[in-house]
Amino acid sequence: MEPHVSDHVRIFDTTLRDGEQAPGCTMTRDEKLEVARQLARLKVDIIEAGFPAASPGDWEAVNAIAQEIGTPDGPVICGLARTVKEDIDKCWTAIEPAAKKRIHTFLSTSDIHIEHQLRTTRGEVLESVGEMVSYARSLCDDVEFSPMDAGRSDPQFLYEVLKIAVECGATTLNIPDTVGYTTPEEYYAMIAGIRKNVPGIEQVTLSTHCHDDLGMAVANSLAGVRAGARQVECTINGIGERAGNASLEEVVMALHTRQLFFGIQTSINTRELTRTSRLVSACTGVHVPPNKAIVGANAFAHESGIHQDGILKNRLTYEIMSAETVGLDGNALVLGKHSGRHAFRKHLEELGYNLKDEEFRHVFARFKEVADKKKIVDDRDIEALIAGESQRPIAIYELDQVQVSCGTHAIPTATVRMRGPGGVVKTEAAQGTGPIDAVCQAINKIVGEPGELVEFSVNAITEGINAVAEVTMRVQEYGTRAAENDPNGKSSGLASANRPRVFSGYGMLHAVDLFGNSVLGQHEA
Amino acid sequence: MEPHVSDHVRIFDTTLRDGEQAPGCTMTRDEKLEVARQLARLKVDIIEAGFPAASPGDWEAVNAIAQEIGTPDGPVICGLARTVKEDIDKCWTAIEPAAKKRIHTFLSTSDIHIEHQLRTTRGEVLESVGEMVSYARSLCDDVEFSPMDAGRSDPQFLYEVLKIAVECGATTLNIPDTVGYTTPEEYYAMIAGIRKNVPGIEQVTLSTHCHDDLGMAVANSLAGVRAGARQVECTINGIGERAGNASLEEVVMALHTRQLFFGIQTSINTRELTRTSRLVSACTGVHVPPNKAIVGANAFAHESGIHQDGILKNRLTYEIMSAETVGLDGNALVLGKHSGRHAFRKHLEELGYNLKDEEFRHVFARFKEVADKKKIVDDRDIEALIAGESQRPIAIYELDQVQVSCGTHAIPTATVRMRGPGGVVKTEAAQGTGPIDAVCQAINKIVGEPGELVEFSVNAITEGINAVAEVTMRVQEYGTRAAENDPNGKSSGLASANRPRVFSGYGMLHAVDLFGNSVLGQHEA
Repeated sequence: MEPHVSDHVRIFDTTLRDGEQAPGCTMTRDEKLEVARQLARLKVDIIEAGFPAASPGDWEAVNAIAQEIGTPDGPVICGLARTVKEDIDKCWTAIEPAAKKRIHTFLSTSDIHIEHQLRTTRGEVLESVGEMVSYARSLCDDVEFSPMDAGRSDPQFLYEVLKIAVECGATTLNIPDTVGYTTPEEYYAMIAGIRKNVPGIEQVTLSTHCHDDLGMAVANSLAGVRAGARQVECTINGIGERAGNASLEEVVMALHTRQLFFGIQTSINTRELTRTSRLVSACTGVHVPPNKAIVGANAFAHESGIHQDGILKNRLTYEIMSAETVGLDGNALVLGKHSGRHAFRKHLEELGYNLKDEEFRHVFARFKEVADKKKIVDDRDIEALIAGESQRPIAIYELDQVQVSCGTHAIPTATVRMRGPGGVVKTEAAQGTGPIDAVCQAINKIVGEPGELVEFSVNAITEGINAVAEVTMRVQEYGTRAAENDPNGKSSGLASANRPRVFSGYGMLHAVDLFGNSVLGQHEA
Repeated sequence: MEPHVSDHVRIFDTTLRDGEQAPGCTMTRDEKLEVARQLARLKVDIIEAGFPAASPGDWEAVNAIAQEIGTPDGPVICGLARTVKEDIDKCWTAIEPAAKKRIHTFLSTSDIHIEHQLRTTRGEVLESVGEMVSYARSLCDDVEFSPMDAGRSDPQFLYEVLKIAVECGATTLNIPDTVGYTTPEEYYAMIAGIRKNVPGIEQVTLSTHCHDDLGMAVANSLAGVRAGARQVECTINGIGERAGNASLEEVVMALHTRQLFFGIQTSINTRELTRTSRLVSACTGVHVPPNKAIVGANAFAHESGIHQDGILKNRLTYEIMSAETVGLDGNALVLGKHSGRHAFRKHLEELGYNLKDEEFRHVFARFKEVADKKKIVDDRDIEALIAGESQRPIAIYELDQVQVSCGTHAIPTATVRMRGPGGVVKTEAAQGTGPIDAVCQAINKIVGEPGELVEFSVNAITEGINAVAEVTMRVQEYGTRAAENDPNGKSSGLASANRPRVFSGYGMLHAVDLFGNSVLGQHEA
């Protein structure tokens, strides 16, 4: 372990665990792998890859990330586990293939959680923490313990729990403000109090984990760093439960831009921030608003005449960091419809993408389609194409033809022809409440598995009438939504056992071209 | 003036000035009026309605708001002005009809702005502030002065400028962190330093104005309040230049939820927060992401099994405020296709909407259309319908009929029939790169004013396949976009004189019904 007074803060990314836990942010195994690859490029110190005991799918995704991303020079791969032997075992088997790995175990320490949720006592909490941290440490050298709802816990009891965790071998103590309740002053005081009152604290790394319910997650995390924390838990785009977690890009750029104030370094390659943000946005379908700090479309835009005037005279008048620092170059690449396979591949490699031949073939074909309609294809278009490609599932049905007609005095009607298992071609026509619905209804007739459209959104990624847009459709198995409010079957306390199956499709197309690829490309989340 | 140690903080909303200044957030006069009406319902203390000298349109909007919203029991109506006599005169004539009014004048005090943008000296800055604050005060009893870029100003010079402003009659001193550079500790220290070092400061109200470039606008504003500021400048949804301003809903709910910590009251009716957020989102086309604190779709959603389990056992385990507090009731109203005109009007009144007969007729007709397709119409659907209605422009062309056909192997083709000035009916067919484009092309042929589609987005507001969605289209006069980067004509330093004309349309429709009303309803922004 580095000494506690180090000026280096570890960035612990929990996009794939706490982020993925948010409504609508569910990702497939392949999406998680793609995000993990990009997090490694971003040079995060630790990736929390998931909660292996939550479901077999979660275990499988964590295991795949441990295998592929957990190289000796890659990030630490971490899995979450309750203070329960079975959880810790599942976590351990999932992360075991990684060169560097961590078990992260947690238990609530606030009286409100102990009494009302766990229905246990402080004494039993102390016992579980001791036993389970020891057990985790018997498997893994790197163990993190989190006293859940620390922000609302009795400080004296919190110190006692943390003391036991340190004695039993925890190497990182993470202090979650689970409900996003604290202010920077309070969070600073909490971290300072722990440093002062927990024996042996100087041997371990203290970590922040702040939620944004009152809009202060970033400020709280940085207050924790000022008080001596040397790990920050955060997510790309600030996704996560409810209002989300501290946003990685904001924490990192505050430390970077205010280097003289904080005196803190991170290992992050800030030039990968924009690309990472876009990838996570594409995989989760959670759009980044234009006024989001660091990665929003307007973060570096200056609209008012007075500001523009200042910027033209001297950028420093209104700009505290440059767009280039976060990888927002806006370089229009001289790639167009006449660009060849070789030039395109070379450029992809410069952008950091090493695609398999099959993937490359698809991306190149889509590139040609886009280049056909758009004179210049820039890096942002290419990133969008690749983000779409990486999530391509194994197709069971292939779309052969779609034809739609509608209007103000017409009944929206679609005809769809698809090639299914065994090469069988089926054609069906259907009417709908609108053209997209008509297409869905026709597909439903062919596939025979009716779904409920829960999300349909079109968002332009690039600008102008020839913009590349992303279309996100989420279709849920019919009748499963009610489960969310069903009090039965939830009391197991497991993370996502009862989630309805959601099929989501994500396609790249011209903003004005609402049919074609977007309708298919469905896969299970 | 209330004494400086008051436990009441004034909420100064600048959605219509700093918010509207952000790229893509331009609002029409009618949209601004609608937002101002809702801000009055929300009970903000001061509405900064615009920058009257920026353009005749800005003057007109501020003046209309002063007339309609500036009632004796309504909010203070404020206008922005540079420390220039002409600006202050225009500001005064615009706000004069209001019962309570304020002139807000500003000048940069940081050396980087003084040298590089203003190209002047500290001495001349002192002189301008003295003269122009005195002049403003000769017109109006309520004068606010802002030292722009205070966050990067030399504290001693800042104190000197503020001292002169107080001597010349300023009643509020607003301290902007214009570039979003400070941390809560620094912002606290700046406010505390001003309280200590500016003679006469106890006679005026200190105000915060924080930008979110490093994600700390809310924490900085609250640090300012802790240090003695008694006005917070903020915007709905945190819109504004670049990464935006402190978000009103976050500041207010932090003060409200952490009442015991802050010991501060506001006059805000928190139950209007959700509705205000949605209206501003609809008027600006800037969508609120699901993980936005307070007003995001997930802000009160609990996804993971463990959190859901806790919530079911006791809401306080994971919830620090209730959704009802911010007006998110989710009550499905028993209004459907059989509901009559009277019941509907009565319900609108309960929701706080008093529509004119003509407006009511349109909303009722749209309500019937929605009720026809959707069994239950809830308050959120109704708010969406009304938000659309309030922006209805005077139609020059009326859509008579649209007919579209497209498909994977077809050329997207649209036929449009419109009734224009003098009742002349024109019909045109056009092909396009997609169905929406084909419709636009056909309309262009009829109207004869080609535009460039700069934004097209569809976002479901309510859930499920029968969801009501909002479609936002922004069409810009062809060829005007380049102006943004044109170094000529911008050096006047005026706010928005050279903005290209943007026509935006906003429609309500079923998520799956992409044609119809959405295509028309264009109006000038």
